[in-house]
Amino acid sequence: MVTIAIIGGTGPEGRGLGLRFAMAGHAVVLGSRDAGRATAAAQELLALWPGLSVAGAPNAAAANTAEWVVLSTPYDGLAPTVQALTPSLAGKLVISVVSALTFQGGHPRPIEVPEGSAAQQVAGLLPASQVVSAFHHVSAHDLLAPGTEVEGDVIVCGDADEAKGQVMTLVEQVRSLRAVDGGGLDNSRHSEALTALLLDLNRRYKTRTAVRLLGL
Amino acid sequence: MVTIAIIGGTGPEGRGLGLRFAMAGHAVVLGSRDAGRATAAAQELLALWPGLSVAGAPNAAAANTAEWVVLSTPYDGLAPTVQALTPSLAGKLVISVVSALTFQGGHPRPIEVPEGSAAQQVAGLLPASQVVSAFHHVSAHDLLAPGTEVEGDVIVCGDADEAKGQVMTLVEQVRSLRAVDGGGLDNSRHSEALTALLLDLNRRYKTRTAVRLLGL
Repeated sequence: MVTIAIIGGTGPEGRGLGLRFAMAGHAVVLGSRDAGRATAAAQELLALWPGLSVAGAPNAAAANTAEWVVLSTPYDGLAPTVQALTPSLAGKLVISVVSALTFQGGHPRPIEVPEGSAAQQVAGLLPASQVVSAFHHVSAHDLLAPGTEVEGDVIVCGDADEAKGQVMTLVEQVRSLRAVDGGGLDNSRHSEALTALLLDLNRRYKTRTAVRLLGL
Repeated sequence: MVTIAIIGGTGPEGRGLGLRFAMAGHAVVLGSRDAGRATAAAQELLALWPGLSVAGAPNAAAANTAEWVVLSTPYDGLAPTVQALTPSLAGKLVISVVSALTFQGGHPRPIEVPEGSAAQQVAGLLPASQVVSAFHHVSAHDLLAPGTEVEGDVIVCGDADEAKGQVMTLVEQVRSLRAVDGGGLDNSRHSEALTALLLDLNRRYKTRTAVRLLGL
C-alpha cells in the first residue's frame, strides 16, 4: 500500500486513476488548486465505491503527503504546476500521464516540446525526482465505471529501471490493464503522440479506443 | 485487379507488400534504381509463390506502368525519388508506407519534417496525385512468409475519401489485416511516430509487434 497523490486529480482522468488505484488498495489523495473541489471529487469516488481510502487536498498538501505523485493536469498547466511543487516532489516517484497536446476546434494537435515530450519536460524540471510516463491511452470514462474492466496496454517509459518497474506493477493492479516496457523516457514522445491519434479515432468512430500491442 | 508499382520494391517491406498484393490478385511491378535487382526481387517472390503476376522494372518504368504506386523507400531517399518520378505519378493514387525516421546506433529516431510527416511531404511534392498513407506497422518478416497470417490494424490516412477507401479495401485483401480510417493526411504523423515505438519494442522484447486498436 502506497500513498499516491494525483495532481490535477479532479479532472476525469485524475479521478478515474484515483478510483482504480484506491480499488487496488492504495491510499489516494486527489489534489486540486481548490481544496473544496478536491474534497468534492473524493466524495464522488467514495459514492461510487464506499470504503476506499480517498481524500482531497490542495495540490501542495497532496504532494507532501504522498510517496508517489501522479501528474494529471492539461499540458497547458503542467510546467507551472510542477515548478510550484518542486520541493514537495524531490526524491519521489513522479508519474506523468500528460500528453503534449492542445485542441484546435476540438481536433487534438501535438505540441512541439523542446525537451521532446511532456514527460521529458517534467524530468528537466525535477532533477531530484524519478520521472516515469504512463497511462496516456486509458479511457477516463472506463476508469470511472468501477464495474468495467479497463482493457488495453499501458506503455511505461522511464530512465530508472526500479521506478519503471514499480509503475508497471501499479498498472497491472488495475484489472485487465497490461504494462508494456516502453523503454527510456525519450520514448514517451511516441506514446504521447499516439494519444492524439486515439482521440481523433474516438471522435470519428464515436467510440473509446485503446491500444493492444500484438506479438509481446 | 489493379497494376501496383512498388517504388523501393526490393527492400523487405516492399517485397513483402508486393507478395501480398500479388497473392490478392493484383499485378505487381517491383521498382528499383537497378533493373537487375528489381528482376531478382521479382524472381524471389515467384519462388515463394509460383504463378503470381510479379515483374521487376526500373522505378520510372514501374511507375509509368501502374495505376497505383506504393512508395517504400527509406525516408532519406524519399524526396529525391518522388521528385524524379513526379510526371509518372500525376493523376495516380500514391500510397506512402514511409515513416519519417532515422536510426542512430540502431535506435529509431523521429525526424522533424516541416510538412508534418513523410506522407505530407510527398503530398506537397505531388499536387496532381492522390496521396494516402498506410502500412507503417506491418512486419516485413511476416509479409514475406506466405503461410503467415499478418495480424494487426493498418491505420490509413488521406484527404481524398475515395482514394482512402480504395487503400482500405487493399489492406483488407491482405489476410488478417484490418483497415482503420485514420482520418486526414495530417494524422499520418502520429502513425509514423508509432513506428519508432514499435521498432524499439521489437528490439527490447526481441519480437515483432503489431498494433490492434480496441473499441472499434
